Amino acid sequence: MPPPAVRVGLLGCGVVATGFLRLLRERERLIRESVGAPLIVTRVAVRDPAKRRGADLSGVALEADPVAVAAATDVDLLIELAGGEAVFDALRTALERGVPVVTANKHLLSLRGEELERLAAASGTTIRYEASAGGGIPVLQALEHGLRTERFQLLVAILNGTTNYILSTMERDGRDFAEALDAARKLGFAESDPTLDLTGADTAEKLSILVRRAFRVSVPHASIPTEGIIGMEQEDLRQADRFGYTVKLLGIALRHSDGLDLRVHPAFIPKRYLLASVRDEFNGVYLRGEATGSMLFYGKGAGALPTAQAVLGDAVAAAREIVGGVRYPRAAPEAEPGKRLPLDEVRTKYYLRLIVEDRPGVLAQVAGCLGGSRVSVAQMFQAEGIRGEASITMLTHDARDRDVRDAVKGIAGLPAVRKAPRAVRIFDL
Amino acid sequence: MPPPAVRVGLLGCGVVATGFLRLLRERERLIRESVGAPLIVTRVAVRDPAKRRGADLSGVALEADPVAVAAATDVDLLIELAGGEAVFDALRTALERGVPVVTANKHLLSLRGEELERLAAASGTTIRYEASAGGGIPVLQALEHGLRTERFQLLVAILNGTTNYILSTMERDGRDFAEALDAARKLGFAESDPTLDLTGADTAEKLSILVRRAFRVSVPHASIPTEGIIGMEQEDLRQADRFGYTVKLLGIALRHSDGLDLRVHPAFIPKRYLLASVRDEFNGVYLRGEATGSMLFYGKGAGALPTAQAVLGDAVAAAREIVGGVRYPRAAPEAEPGKRLPLDEVRTKYYLRLIVEDRPGVLAQVAGCLGGSRVSVAQMFQAEGIRGEASITMLTHDARDRDVRDAVKGIAGLPAVRKAPRAVRIFDL
Repeated sequence: MPPPAVRVGLLGCGVVATGFLRLLRERERLIRESVGAPLIVTRVAVRDPAKRRGADLSGVALEADPVAVAAATDVDLLIELAGGEAVFDALRTALERGVPVVTANKHLLSLRGEELERLAAASGTTIRYEASAGGGIPVLQALEHGLRTERFQLLVAILNGTTNYILSTMERDGRDFAEALDAARKLGFAESDPTLDLTGADTAEKLSILVRRAFRVSVPHASIPTEGIIGMEQEDLRQADRFGYTVKLLGIALRHSDGLDLRVHPAFIPKRYLLASVRDEFNGVYLRGEATGSMLFYGKGAGALPTAQAVLGDAVAAAREIVGGVRYPRAAPEAEPGKRLPLDEVRTKYYLRLIVEDRPGVLAQVAGCLGGSRVSVAQMFQAEGIRGEASITMLTHDARDRDVRDAVKGIAGLPAVRKAPRAVRIFDL
Repeated sequence: MPPPAVRVGLLGCGVVATGFLRLLRERERLIRESVGAPLIVTRVAVRDPAKRRGADLSGVALEADPVAVAAATDVDLLIELAGGEAVFDALRTALERGVPVVTANKHLLSLRGEELERLAAASGTTIRYEASAGGGIPVLQALEHGLRTERFQLLVAILNGTTNYILSTMERDGRDFAEALDAARKLGFAESDPTLDLTGADTAEKLSILVRRAFRVSVPHASIPTEGIIGMEQEDLRQADRFGYTVKLLGIALRHSDGLDLRVHPAFIPKRYLLASVRDEFNGVYLRGEATGSMLFYGKGAGALPTAQAVLGDAVAAAREIVGGVRYPRAAPEAEPGKRLPLDEVRTKYYLRLIVEDRPGVLAQVAGCLGGSRVSVAQMFQAEGIRGEASITMLTHDARDRDVRDAVKGIAGLPAVRKAPRAVRIFDL
């Protein structure tokens, strides 16, 4: 006989949790039919239980201690939407007693995901986190299920809606970075402190989560070479357009024979790529598998309801397993040999833009720096500027990333170079 | 203790089955770790057991009778890659004795899918069919799991690689229909008899399968108004381009307040749509959900290995459930009120192209037919042709589909109209 209800403990009661509670109510019949029992929230952990909230929490026990919720005997399923590292103990408490966990906590997962997976496996339960990377896009679930036994050569993804909105706005409306960031803030696509978005750290965390599923390697996000979009200028986007490219902040995982190339940086990508059409606050994950070939998952990467729907999807899957009495035979996640290809050794094309003094000999000095680092130029344009300046735009051939950065450092040090050179990688396989 | 192996019975031994057997070998370790036991093929049903095959079938019992394989006590999981309606009995045999089924048989699923689902539910087992629609794209699984409790307003999909390749080739290379079909044949994207592809029947079958999952309604594919791409001319693609559109064969499911609008037909779609960038043999499924908003799944819709990988994904999921001792509490699929909006009542824009005698009064006659059917014109171009002919191209405003077809019939009957008018719907929400 199925249990009368699957009892949910919820950590956090912010916008995503409120969206989740709303979906729980609106989809009540669908959920009950899918699970074979209703999902009922019995306990919610909130920082201040006395505070009034938008969500209807009548009949729910409010607690200040997340661990108490995770340990409560009337909690069969723990849903963690509080965020931060401090909830780790609550997640461990739940997993250790065999209570499945659903979480959207990308920061914690990218720091301690492997440990959490091991805890889940040890007690034959599960931790699901569809909402943690790619928001409402069901890509983690696809990697966990249908694509579980596929081998991937490549994952390239736009995982941060804030920066994608900024770049799209700069491109479409010709705005500069600061204006586009303002617009993103006004529309709620950027938080008051968007540092994690703009520096690429958010993308690196999500890449680390996706890579564990797609490539079966555990990579701390801090070890992923990461550059953000700060410093991107309107002129860079204009130049990209002129060369047939568009600019995106990418998370990249590329399997080479001599190691896995992982990195996060803005890149020029050809306009013909489907990822070039992933605009505004949307996310996209492109995968290339040995058997499946090219695939793209596209959708909203953030927002209360898309995220809440991803959480609900995980919750329903976990609840079905509870009711079905499932205990999967889960070994600790099989780590594959995780040899990395250092960024220094990656071969890539570059876009370079310089502002130099418009006088004879300067171009020769610039060319000398490039040649000295074994970087050869594929295309170059020079335009007269104002105040005796000239602007030089170049696309390089494939070169060692380290060599290009050395060359750029050399160029930056030339007396005739008026401001720090702009250098953006080109991702065009 | 987990069983020593999950024993697979396989129906059919064509290219997809051969690809499946190859993946089973190449991914042996991954499969074993995922399932907790190896997958071993014990029996294969083939039309002629004496025939030699490319696949290594040593140690496997070859049989001529699919039902015997489905009933064999050494078969824990049935994988059906034979196709056709005749295998229904084998599928029923397996499901009735609680053996899960994986199938790629879109034709059978679109005819008797609901019945098969009910049989599976009745014995607490499952039937999975990721490969039957959208090939290697894990969209059915996403609808079954993460998106199970989402409500969709819209599904628009490119589900047939053959026709998409033909239309892409016509558009890119300026070829005519026959040449593009030839090219598709040479590349193996079109079968020797491509009737099911070209008439849209294949798309209608796949739409019927997707709609059961996404909208929880059971719709026989034969009841879906279906038009194919036969008759599409190079000039239509040129005109589409001129108006900012591209031409795709679409499967459409659109929820209106007064019913579900289901149809398959070629359509002009705006170039800004992501679906417009789904080219060549690729498929794409666009979904719009109440909570998730816009989503796109993109990938290979056919081909031995992409299809085999989808089958393997289903097989591994089913095997995990076997080993985990799962019996989901599955009610018969909850049918939602399936009110349909007849195509006659659908409001849509149209592209029309006419070849008429170039003499005074003809345009007035054409306009009369349109006005008489309450169809109003948004844009019109007339060009002088050869031999005293003129070509008239029009885009209409939104109008009842029935009214436009009536108007076209009227126009076709005008003495001054030299050949059957071309009429293609515009899908631009």
